[in-house]
This record gives sequence, C-alpha cells and structure tokens, in this order.
Amino acid sequence: MSVSNVQRLPAASAKRGGTSLAHFDGVRAQSESLAEPLSPEDCAGQSMPDASPVKWHLAHTTWFFETFVLESLLPDYQTFAPGYRVLFNSYYQSVGAQHPRPHRGLLTRPSLDEVLAYRAHVDTAIASLFREGRIEGEAARVVEIGLHHEQQHQELLLTDVKHLLACNPLYPAYREDLEATRSNGAAPPALRYENVATGIRSIGHDGQGFHFDNEAPRHEVLVPGFALANRPVTNGEYLAFIADGGYRDPQWWLAEGWDTVGREGWRAPDYWVGEGDPASPDDWQVFTLGGLAPLQADAPVCHVSYFEADAYARWAGARLPTEHEWEVAARAHGADEPAGNFVETEALHPVASEAVPDEPITQLYGDVWEWTQSPYVGYPGFCTSEGALGEYNGKFMVNQLVLRGGSCATPQSHIRATYRNFFPASARWQFSGIRLAVDAP
Amino acid sequence: MSVSNVQRLPAASAKRGGTSLAHFDGVRAQSESLAEPLSPEDCAGQSMPDASPVKWHLAHTTWFFETFVLESLLPDYQTFAPGYRVLFNSYYQSVGAQHPRPHRGLLTRPSLDEVLAYRAHVDTAIASLFREGRIEGEAARVVEIGLHHEQQHQELLLTDVKHLLACNPLYPAYREDLEATRSNGAAPPALRYENVATGIRSIGHDGQGFHFDNEAPRHEVLVPGFALANRPVTNGEYLAFIADGGYRDPQWWLAEGWDTVGREGWRAPDYWVGEGDPASPDDWQVFTLGGLAPLQADAPVCHVSYFEADAYARWAGARLPTEHEWEVAARAHGADEPAGNFVETEALHPVASEAVPDEPITQLYGDVWEWTQSPYVGYPGFCTSEGALGEYNGKFMVNQLVLRGGSCATPQSHIRATYRNFFPASARWQFSGIRLAVDAP
Amino acid sequence: MSVSNVQRLPAASAKRGGTSLAHFDGVRAQSESLAEPLSPEDCAGQSMPDASPVKWHLAHTTWFFETFVLESLLPDYQTFAPGYRVLFNSYYQSVGAQHPRPHRGLLTRPSLDEVLAYRAHVDTAIASLFREGRIEGEAARVVEIGLHHEQQHQELLLTDVKHLLACNPLYPAYREDLEATRSNGAAPPALRYENVATGIRSIGHDGQGFHFDNEAPRHEVLVPGFALANRPVTNGEYLAFIADGGYRDPQWWLAEGWDTVGREGWRAPDYWVGEGDPASPDDWQVFTLGGLAPLQADAPVCHVSYFEADAYARWAGARLPTEHEWEVAARAHGADEPAGNFVETEALHPVASEAVPDEPITQLYGDVWEWTQSPYVGYPGFCTSEGALGEYNGKFMVNQLVLRGGSCATPQSHIRATYRNFFPASARWQFSGIRLAVDAP
Amino acid sequence: MSVSNVQRLPAASAKRGGTSLAHFDGVRAQSESLAEPLSPEDCAGQSMPDASPVKWHLAHTTWFFETFVLESLLPDYQTFAPGYRVLFNSYYQSVGAQHPRPHRGLLTRPSLDEVLAYRAHVDTAIASLFREGRIEGEAARVVEIGLHHEQQHQELLLTDVKHLLACNPLYPAYREDLEATRSNGAAPPALRYENVATGIRSIGHDGQGFHFDNEAPRHEVLVPGFALANRPVTNGEYLAFIADGGYRDPQWWLAEGWDTVGREGWRAPDYWVGEGDPASPDDWQVFTLGGLAPLQADAPVCHVSYFEADAYARWAGARLPTEHEWEVAARAHGADEPAGNFVETEALHPVASEAVPDEPITQLYGDVWEWTQSPYVGYPGFCTSEGALGEYNGKFMVNQLVLRGGSCATPQSHIRATYRNFFPASARWQFSGIRLAVDAP
Repeated sequence: MSVSNVQRLPAASAKRGGTSLAHFDGVRAQSESLAEPLSPEDCAGQSMPDASPVKWHLAHTTWFFETFVLESLLPDYQTFAPGYRVLFNSYYQSVGAQHPRPHRGLLTRPSLDEVLAYRAHVDTAIASLFREGRIEGEAARVVEIGLHHEQQHQELLLTDVKHLLACNPLYPAYREDLEATRSNGAAPPALRYENVATGIRSIGHDGQGFHFDNEAPRHEVLVPGFALANRPVTNGEYLAFIADGGYRDPQWWLAEGWDTVGREGWRAPDYWVGEGDPASPDDWQVFTLGGLAPLQADAPVCHVSYFEADAYARWAGARLPTEHEWEVAARAHGADEPAGNFVETEALHPVASEAVPDEPITQLYGDVWEWTQSPYVGYPGFCTSEGALGEYNGKFMVNQLVLRGGSCATPQSHIRATYRNFFPASARWQFSGIRLAVDAP
Repeated sequence: MSVSNVQRLPAASAKRGGTSLAHFDGVRAQSESLAEPLSPEDCAGQSMPDASPVKWHLAHTTWFFETFVLESLLPDYQTFAPGYRVLFNSYYQSVGAQHPRPHRGLLTRPSLDEVLAYRAHVDTAIASLFREGRIEGEAARVVEIGLHHEQQHQELLLTDVKHLLACNPLYPAYREDLEATRSNGAAPPALRYENVATGIRSIGHDGQGFHFDNEAPRHEVLVPGFALANRPVTNGEYLAFIADGGYRDPQWWLAEGWDTVGREGWRAPDYWVGEGDPASPDDWQVFTLGGLAPLQADAPVCHVSYFEADAYARWAGARLPTEHEWEVAARAHGADEPAGNFVETEALHPVASEAVPDEPITQLYGDVWEWTQSPYVGYPGFCTSEGALGEYNGKFMVNQLVLRGGSCATPQSHIRATYRNFFPASARWQFSGIRLAVDAP
Repeated sequence: MSVSNVQRLPAASAKRGGTSLAHFDGVRAQSESLAEPLSPEDCAGQSMPDASPVKWHLAHTTWFFETFVLESLLPDYQTFAPGYRVLFNSYYQSVGAQHPRPHRGLLTRPSLDEVLAYRAHVDTAIASLFREGRIEGEAARVVEIGLHHEQQHQELLLTDVKHLLACNPLYPAYREDLEATRSNGAAPPALRYENVATGIRSIGHDGQGFHFDNEAPRHEVLVPGFALANRPVTNGEYLAFIADGGYRDPQWWLAEGWDTVGREGWRAPDYWVGEGDPASPDDWQVFTLGGLAPLQADAPVCHVSYFEADAYARWAGARLPTEHEWEVAARAHGADEPAGNFVETEALHPVASEAVPDEPITQLYGDVWEWTQSPYVGYPGFCTSEGALGEYNGKFMVNQLVLRGGSCATPQSHIRATYRNFFPASARWQFSGIRLAVDAP
Repeated sequence: MSVSNVQRLPAASAKRGGTSLAHFDGVRAQSESLAEPLSPEDCAGQSMPDASPVKWHLAHTTWFFETFVLESLLPDYQTFAPGYRVLFNSYYQSVGAQHPRPHRGLLTRPSLDEVLAYRAHVDTAIASLFREGRIEGEAARVVEIGLHHEQQHQELLLTDVKHLLACNPLYPAYREDLEATRSNGAAPPALRYENVATGIRSIGHDGQGFHFDNEAPRHEVLVPGFALANRPVTNGEYLAFIADGGYRDPQWWLAEGWDTVGREGWRAPDYWVGEGDPASPDDWQVFTLGGLAPLQADAPVCHVSYFEADAYARWAGARLPTEHEWEVAARAHGADEPAGNFVETEALHPVASEAVPDEPITQLYGDVWEWTQSPYVGYPGFCTSEGALGEYNGKFMVNQLVLRGGSCATPQSHIRATYRNFFPASARWQFSGIRLAVDAP
C-alpha cells in the first residue's frame, strides 16, 4: 500500500468468504490493540506528510465504515460528529473536501478518547446490521473491503509511529517487551539462485476470493528465463556494500538515486544509528519498535529505498526481479497459505531465518516487502470501478514501484501471491528489503 | 517577548523584592493552571516553528530552574532525566546542544504526566532550598529571573495554543466559559490626540526593582513634540480600512509588507474568519480562546502585524509612536501600578473600554501590545552580562520592532512602563494592536 | 531524449554506415544554422534547470568530440581551454566534476564567438583525422554516437530556446518567417481505430545499423490485441476537454497529476495564451517559434504533459498506447523510411494533416512525440556498456515515460520505429502530443 | 542604495545647481562607459534576485527619463517601444505593472544594441528639451533626480556584474587592466580612537543643494559621548578574527547572524577564495573586478555583511557606530568636498591608505561603505512626497541598516556627509566594510 492510497478495490468475485461479525470485531479490535501501548500524545503526532497520526488511522478506518456502509444503508443514520466527514476523509473527492494531509498532526481534537468513542459508536451500528442480517450483497462486499482497508492501515500505523518515535532523540520504544531484535542464533542459508525457465505465465488473481482490483485481470505474460535468490539480502551482506564505499560511488546508482543520496545525506539504511566506522557491524545500532538494538548481521536488511535496493543489486552483479518473476516464483515455491514472520509473530522486526533443506526459496512472505524493478501500472484490460469507492482505482499508477510479499508488520490474512504493494522509489519508512535476481544463465 | 528569545536578564539592582517561596509556588502553579483546560494532545502539538507546544513550555521553564539553580547550588543533584538537558534547552549554546525548534512538536515523549512529574520534582527541590534559606544573593537573583521568564512563557503558552487550535477546522475552544467575546456594551471615547511638548526625557529603567537588561541603562533622549492617541484603534475603525480596499492598495504599505500581503494572502487581521463582504462587520467572526465569536466593533483590533499597523496608520493620516514617545506618555499618564485587562481578568481577549472622564489616555496597559515604529536596539551603553545566563543578551537586536504595554495574556505583575517586548514585522499571533501618534501640530 | 540524459549509447552493430566527413560536417553545420537567428544574449539565457542555453548546447556537443575522440586518439592534443572540461561536461562523473546544471545560464563567458571558435577548432582537428583515415573502428563508433548525440541536442536547442523566449512578455519570435502557424487548410481524417490482433511480437532493434542501447536487446513480447487511433488528437478535440471542465475535475486525473494541475495552475497546454473564454478557440493564441499565432483547431495538440495526455484519454473513453503497441503499429503501418513533419520541413510546429486514403494510420512520425503509458525501463537482458561513454546507460530508467515517433523539431535521419524517448510525467516543453488507443473490442 | 530601492527623492530645496546638458551627457556617458568592457552576454545575465543585469540598469535609467520627463513634458511623445513600460519599471506601482525582478535575466530581448539605441533616442529628446530651455523648474528637479538615480545604478551595475562574474568558475575579469589589487606598499596608521564629547547635534541635510528626502528634515539629536576608530578594519585584522575561530563561535554573533552563517556556510567575507589554512593570508585569494588577486593584508576588509561587521566588532571589544556618530565625526573631520578612493580612481577595489599626520580620521569616504548599527528609519517629521516619484519614499524603512561614506564604486559627486545608504543585514555583494566605535571612556 502506498502512503497516499491504501485503498484499492476488489474486482467482483463469485465467492467471498469470511465477512462475519466475529471477523469484523477481530480486525477492529486488532487496530485498537496496536494503539494500546501508546499515549495520547504518541497517537497524535505526525512526523512527515507521508505518515499519519495513529489517531487519524483509527478514525479514518472508522469513517470508511460510517461513510460507505452506515450512511448508505441507514437513511436516518446520525453521524457521530459532522466535522469528521472532512477531517477523516483521506482522498475521496466525490465524498467532499479533505483536511490537508500534512496538517493531520495538528488535529489535537478530537482527543484519542473521543476517537475511541467514535469507533465504538460505529462498531455498535455495524454489529446491529450484522445481527439484522443486513450485511449481505453489496454491503458485505463493502464491509469486506473496509476490513482489508483497515488491515492496510494497521501496517501503516506501525510504520508511521516508528518514524515518529525515531524523531525523538531519546529513541523511545513502542513496546519494551519485543525480543526480535536480539540475535536468534539462526544461520541463514548461503546465497543461491533458483532457475526458472522461459514460458508464458498467468499473472494476476484468478478471481476466487478477495483481491484488490489492481491484481486483476489475470493475463498471460511471456516471462523470459531467470533465476531468483533463495533468500533476502542480509544486513551483513549490505554492510559489505557500505564498506566498499557504495554510498559514495555514483557508478552504482540511478541518477535520481544519486541526487537523493546527496540531498538526504544517506550513508546507510534508514534507522541505522552510528557515528563510528560505517563498515563495522559493531558500530551500528538499529532503531526498532522495541527501541535501539544491536545490528543483526544475519537478519534481512530493511528500510532501504528502491534506489538503494537497485544500487546494491548492481554492485552485487545482479538485479532486482520483475514483479512477474516474483509472482511466478511464489506460485512455484510458495505454500498455498503464506507463512512467515508477520505481525502476528509480534516480532515487529525482520529476523534471521534458518536454512530449510526442502525449501529452495525462503522468506518470500513476511519479514520485508521485496522491491521489484516493475513500475506500478495497470494490468492489460484494467479498468476502474464506478462510484465513490471506485473513484480512484488507477490514480496512483505513476512514479511508483511494486513491492511483493508482505512484511513483519503485515497481517498474515492480508497477503497473497498476487498482492501488489507500491511506493515511490525514495520511500524508506516501510519494512522494505531486497531479493536479488539474475538473467537465466 | 519574542518567539526566539523570551529570556532577557535583569541588570544588577540594589533592591529586589518578592522572591519568596509563596511567590515561586504561585507563579509555578499559574503555568499548570493555564494548561489545565487542555488535553495531552493539545499540550503536545506545534503549529509552526515560531510556536512551541504547551508541554514544552512547561518543561523548559522547569529546565531553567534545574539548570541554573539546582545544578549550580547542589553538587550532588540528580537530574530528573538526562535527556531533558538537550530536549528542553531553548537556545543556550554554552549549556550544550538543543533539540531543533521546528521539531518540538514531535516530542511525544516525555508525556504530559511525566513533564508534570518533572515540574513537581524540581519544585520540591527548590522549595527545600527556600526552606533552608539558600535562595539568596545570586541564587535569589536567578530564581527571580526564572519567575519572570516563566511569566513570559505563560503568555506564549496562550498565544501558541491559540495558533494551534486555529489550525483545526472545528475551531475548538481553549475554554468554553470565556465571556470576553460577547459585547460588553462599553462605548469607547472618540479618538483624540494628547499633546506632549519637546523635551529631554529620561528613558529606561531606574534600577529600583526588577527589570530586564534591555530596559537599561537609563539615558537621556531629546524627544521632539508629538501627540498620542487616547486609545487603541478599534475593530470598527480597522474595518473602514478594509472596506476602503486597504489590503489591495500598495500605496499604504512598506514594500516588504506589500510583498507579505501578497505571499500570505492577507485580507484581514489574523483569526478573522469570513467568506462574505469584507467590509461588513456581520460577515466576520473572530477566533478567540473561547472559540469563534462575533466581531466586536468597539474592541481594540488585535493580531495585526507591524506591516498592517503601519499601513493602517498611514491610511489614517497618522503614524505609529516611537517607543520613546510611548514611554514618555506612560510616565505622564500611567498609574504607578499598571492596570488593565491582563491575564488575571480571564477575558483572554481584548475588550472595549468605557470613556473615563479623568483619563486622557486609556488602555496603555493590557488588552493589546502596541506596535511602536522603533526597531529593537540596545540603549546607549548597553552591554551583555557574563556567563551562560547573559550569553545572549543582545543577540536578538536586529530586524525586530518594539511593542509596549502588555496584553490580555500578560500577567499584571510582569509589566511596567519601561518593558520592551519585540517581534518581527510580520508576526501576528501575539495579541498585538495599534495606537496612533502624530507629529506635534 | 530526456532533459538530463540526451546521451544513450548504441549497442555494438555489425554494419554501421554513414560516418563520413561530409556527414560530420553536415550535422555540425546544422547546429550552428539553428543558432543563427539568435543573438548572443538569446544563446546565453537559461529559463529553468531542465533547459540549457543554446551556447551550452553548442559547446557541450563539441566537448563530446574533444573528450571522447580527440583526447583519446591524440596524446598530444592541446585542449582549446582547460576550464571547458568542467563547464561543458553534462553528467559524466568519470570524466570529472560538472558545472551545476541550474547555473549554466550564468556562464556569460566564454562568449558565443568563443564557443564558435571552439567548435571550429575541434571540427578542424576531427576533419584532419578523417582525412588521415583515423576515424575507423572504435573512433568511428564514437563519432557516430557523437553525431546522434548532437542531433538530440539540436532538438533540445529548439525546445529550450522556445521556453526561454516564452518567458519574455514581448513574446519574441525565434524566426519571423515561419509559416506553419497559419492554417494550411488541411482537413484531417475522422478519428478511427485500427485493430491489431493478439500475438507474440518482436520488440526492439535488430542490430542492423545505428541504434541506442536502450532499444536493445530485441526480444519477444506477448502483446494483447488492441486498436490504435489513426491520427493524433487535435487542438479542437482537446478544446472540448477544456470546455467540459477537464482541468477542474479530479476524476480524470492521476493523483499526482491533479496535484500538479493545482500547484502549477494549469488550465490548458503549455504555450496557450489567453484570458477569455477557455472553451472558445478564438480566445486562445499559441506561442510558437514564429511568435504568437492563432490556435489551429485541426493541428495536433502539443506541449501537453503525460498527466494531461492520460487525463484526456480517460475523458475520451480511451487510453494511451503502450510502447509495445506503438512499435507494433509502426512496424505494420510505417514506411521503412520515416516520413513526416520533421525539423527539415522548417515548420517548427505541428501542422494539420490531410486524410490519405491508403494510409490507415498517419503522422506516426514527426509533428509531435506521442506519450505512451509505458514507464521507461530496460528491456529484458539490457546491460550497460563499459567505460565513460557507457557509464550511465541505465541511470535514467526510473520515473519517466516513453514517447515515440519524433516531432517537428527532430531531424528526420535521427528517428526510427524502435527509438525510445523519455521524459518525466510533468514535462511540457517538448513537442509532446497524444495518440489514443483502446483494448481490442 | 538598496537592492530594491535605488530611488529616493530630494526634498524641496531653494537652490539647486548643476543640471546642465553637459552634466546630463556626462552622467549618461559614464553608464555606457562602465558597460563598455562587457559582452552582450555579460550585460544580460542575472545571478540573483537582488542583482539586475547591466542591460537592465542601462534601460531602466533611460525609462526613468522617458517616463518622468518626456512623457510628462511632451504630450505627443512617441515611446521608443511600448513594451518597455513594463519591462523596465522597477517598482513604481502607480506607473503600472512590473516585470518580476527575479526574471530580469530572462529578457534576452531587447538586445544590448537595442537598449543602446533606446538610450540614444531618449538622450536626443532630452537634449532637445535642454536646448529649448524647457528643462527648468519641476523638469529640472526631475532631471536632477534622474541623474542621481543613474549614479546609484552605476554603482549597482558594478556590484551586480561582479556578483555575476564570480559565479563563473573561470573567474573572468571585468577589466584586465585594473591595478588596485596589487599591493601599493602603503602602511596604514595604527588603530586609534578619536573622542567626541556628548552634545546636542544637528543631524541631516540643511537643504542647500541636492539631497534625497531620507536625509531630511535636519533635526537635533542628543548624541552621547563616543570614540570613533581612525580608519576602517583591514583584511589583516579581520583575518585574526577568522584565525581565532570567529566563524565557529556563536558568542560573537546575533542569533539571526549565527543562523545565516550556518545556512550559507560562511567562513570568510564574500569573494574570498581559498581551500587552505583559513588563518593564513597566503592561502586566500580575493575575486575583484580585475579577476582573482592575492589578499592585501593592509587594505580595508570588504564584502562583509552587517552580521559579520557586528560580530567582528564584538570580538574586537568594540561596537559599530550609530549613523548619528558617523555623521558627527564626518562633519568634524571631513573636508567639505568628500575625497577618497571613488569610482573615478578606477581602482574598483578598496586600497590600503598611508597614515596622514594631520588627519586624525581617514578614509571616511570611498573605499568601503561603513555599516552603522542604526536601523534605517525616517527622521522625525519625515514625510513622503506626492505623486509617482514620491510614491514610495518611506517604503523601504524596515529591516535594513544604514551605511555611510560611499565606496570605490561610488561616483565622487554622488556622496556627502548626510548620505544614507541602506541594505539588509545579510547583504554582502556591495563594497561594505567596518569602522569600529566605542563608548566614551
């Protein structure tokens, strides 16, 4: 999901499971649970225009259900507070005006308590509709979208508050009890490439079950032969790039990337904190949701931009995969049910993974979103839906790159092989990492 | 006081009254009382670099006592939290690094509760020193400075939170119970000028009692004859300037003021809210600390920049007074004890004033700070003090204008005839207004 | 070609014709001929960082031959002026430092006369090498690149000076004698779509003759069936989009495009000048290289950004073609020798075209570059060359879109079916227009 | 004169000498003579918004005579080119719109030749009026203003083109034949302070002869006793400040000055070029109108901002004089006819001066403008004139500091003891230097 467009719509699907009141309550409770370790101030702060306050995420996801379900189904519905219509509209122009995104952090009112009351108010109304059997058909479809939408915001809630806390020189932890940032002793497998032959492949979702519309239509693509790395790049490997002067040598970088390195003063991934020898792992700490922690050489490198992922790949004599290649490999090697280090693990940070004898390709899911070299465009035949919800289906399809596979902050039930996330090439505050590819030998 | 320099130091004074534990407790309690109507989020927000969060004001004033009193008097003093040394240092370079001013709003930690605990911790330690009789001599001098410093921040706390709340399209009130914004029925006197003859005048503080060093040394100035308006300009009078196209006609404006009008899109004083006929008082509301309120034609106009005050005066065929003229008039007409609509009135907004038969000049004190045409410079012979507290005595003496008389947000005990406040010509978020002057006929 | 990357390198090619002294002299003379109507001041100005002064184009293309041919072949070569190495290096980091691009317009020295002397100096040295038979093998390859490179700068010279002259409220003409902006009475054919069936297509250059490396390797692509418009969109058609409120309705725009419209205040294509009714063709003039001229309803619309091309297409119920689709159509319908309104026509503006009975698709070449919906990325198997010339082969392959077909400012001998031009989505100062496509029915 | 306000108007004066055709021709010819060493490109460039192209200065001063003399006296006057009315209006809003100042460098048309033809056209018309005896009364007054106005632009022409040439890494010279930058062997006198007793002094022009209105009205000021340095600060003395870490120590600086030092990366005066030991005079070169030259330790330091002048003075245990103090000293010690290193010397750079036994205070005039600590405000009773010419008399009287005495780029006949120049505190591109003062002992 991108900073400005967490909402994408599902194409029509014949079968769609799981929109029950229990599921609704579960997803909604999860959002509040994620906010639970935070103070009212923590929930109100906004550290950059691309990030939103936690409180805003909690309110906006509620606004979604209020606007698209309650106001639609209940002609006499009394809105909780009329001003929220503007405050918590993200970018739905047909719904009306929007509070400017960069000023979301100035909304000290409503308070966190009031936002939680707003959630309760809307949840109660939705629960009544469930009990009355009115969440069906189009309403069920919109509720299902709303829940996937909320899961996207759950991930953003974590990445946004991480960015905010990192602006504080005290480096406060989101949760003090996280253990993922201590070495788990796992020894990842040696880097190896798995070959995939040239072929005409089906790309995109088959339409069975929920999916966003940018995953459709399923279509045929001629994918030339390639080889995909068996695991993500680790911190230790990335450190060799730094030690080799990677951030000071323009030959590895896209021109716009090199400009960004200079303008931003980048010399390591985001959240790496250190004043000493940049080539020494002992001289770096990393800021995690558990606070400052030692750099784990065997864990996947994280919080790199597309520019860094691309430069690293070039330095390593490889390249990033296309999103087609990634999806083909995921179909071939992934389990039906994506497994990995998701938000449910409560690590909230990528962790080193043991080599698994029978798994030629590991960690496709979870840990880190994997940058692909594919610009985010519509699939052949893609077209936008009607109405407010479909208002902007394709409107983010320029100047962004596709990422695949989910991260340690993604809900497990949210991800699948065809899922397309997308961010601008300079974005670093997501849990984004690197998987290498090479042309077929 | 200016946004970046609320601290100015007193010159040595032979007699200095009132630094008692009771006074200390009173001033300290007043700061917390002013924050009391606010939520933790309200206290954390920062709407522009020139303004600071309420929480920061509460902590910084405490840091002042901890750094300059406790650390100085108590060799074994345990600081409440080491990180605060950087977080809550405003601009004392000799004390060490400072957290960047524009990022104060990102400090979600420490929480408001922790800051209040910090205050209690420091207050307890200071109280012990009082009880032990150790607040005397230099320590008493520094405590006295610290209390005046805290009073300056009390006013900023109000103006800064007003600016923050005004960024919220809901226009929330700081306090719902303020009445000042309803018409009080007072009928101000007709505008009239009081003559003052040419003469050599003593300007500046005589050294008896507390004063900031920028009020000294007292010195002689040849002040040509002039005439000063008997009261501040009212909203109604200012509305005539707007109705006459004042904001669209460059002839009234300083060149830099005219550029500012265009760049900022000014068309009325700050906090005036209206979409209708700009010449009609009924089409304007004003945002006050009590929320949106009707425009009171008879109340002093407020939240104007120097550029607007100067343009209005030119349009009105008059000019702004010099700070010398203001001080001469205040000496001649002011009571020994400044009286007026100060923060103690709990109006927190300028109010209309009745004509008083025996008072040729009214409202010199309180209601609105009055812009003078005098750039803020050191008096002849002015020199800076030694040490950290005197580190920057004159460092703000460029590109600012002097204002006089205090406002509805100023503590009464803080103001006097020689008090010099100063802000840049474009500043509007203080309670700043206009008093006219003309040359002697 | 893009603003920051007009140089791209040819892949190795078995046969490469035409690098003769006569051809060299012809291309070099053409650059000077294009500068001939301009004064020294005209040649020195720079109106934005993306554009360069004419004088800089004349010098940089010369620097290219001096650096990559003369310095390489002649160990004792005396450089014309040592300082030029930095001044006229565009972005070759391995060659050394570069004068900052935004400051090229501050280089009042060397004068235009000195730059012309620099050209003569280098041309004489190259001519000697030709006569000595030393321009062969690698040297011939580099000279050929240099000439294509110079042709790219010839087009930029025209678009950059057009942008500069348009900043002058007098709207001066580059040449007073241009006639293209008067109606030529041509009646373009009605808009019609030509179908192309699904198929596996060869995309990219076959390696026979000169081509840039971004056109290779030739590779197979499964191209779904589509239909391509028979001609570009006209000013008259685009005016209907404006009249329908196209610039005021977010539903047609990519999110980043809509932001750009608001920030830049766009309400028509670039160089459209008018204060009257935006829906009336008579209320618009267009700035051309011949000065201000009436809007020609039947000429192709020009100077639109990708955002505008994409929004127009959506409004028109169509879409932009992919670059694959464009190339397939060009192969099917284009002549072997691209023909059209190129720079040689000396129209220097797109012109209306008559319907031609036997040409189902017209104006693929010349008049306007046609935006495709394809982001600019490397073809499968693309890799960069060695050495300074190949230093940055792929370094612009992010955040740009591909355009095809050349324009009225492109030399005819420079273009071909596989030629890939690329610019950011917001660029408007090139002669860029719109050809529509739709999915296969 | 300031960057945005070189025009100030004379107060009415009973007697006004010297407006003859010969004088007119002499001043006009001097402008063209100053432009003579420059190419058309040199005359067209603009290096920053505060500076204007040479060509613009030549045209604007001509526009002044055309607009305020010819159009006023000659009802049938045919303007040379209607478009110039907007292009060459600096800031006279009542005359109409103005071309935006930052875009003056984009005006490649009219060419230098056309501007010179414009000058000839207007000069011929004015000469006819002179010969017809029609330049008298108000017309004579306006012509006299126009000539002083042109002299101000002559100085700006030099400082602006110096700034432009300094942006070229080749450091080209304005004139190759200037000798001032070689050491002249002069040994300046030791630094000494001359005492002046407290007294009531007359400040401002007495009204006999030409003066700008900001020099009036003459008025009485009580000036406390002070002592003024006998000569300006030299490069050698300033180097000691640099060697002592002056640019790295916030204690010497105004807060806004310290911010500016950091933001701009200042580490020496403007135009000092060096990479070596900043404390070594041999490691510095200075860019002059004659090109790069060795630093002359005994010459007055130049191209310092007010912030640097003020910081240096504080470091040196002194202060800057007020403009009152400077004027009192100039009256006491200056000759009736200001003498010094003015533009007529053709040094075009400040030079070292010998000690002169009978001159207690030297170099008050010429060499460098001397920063005073006085903000630029109107004198008591100052008021603006009527009409277009007087439109903006006081409109620059905010956020600027007064400088006194003229420089090596000022015409000798332009300066006098009461002359008030003014620039913002951060300006460095004028020939601005430092004279110290201290309080009376």
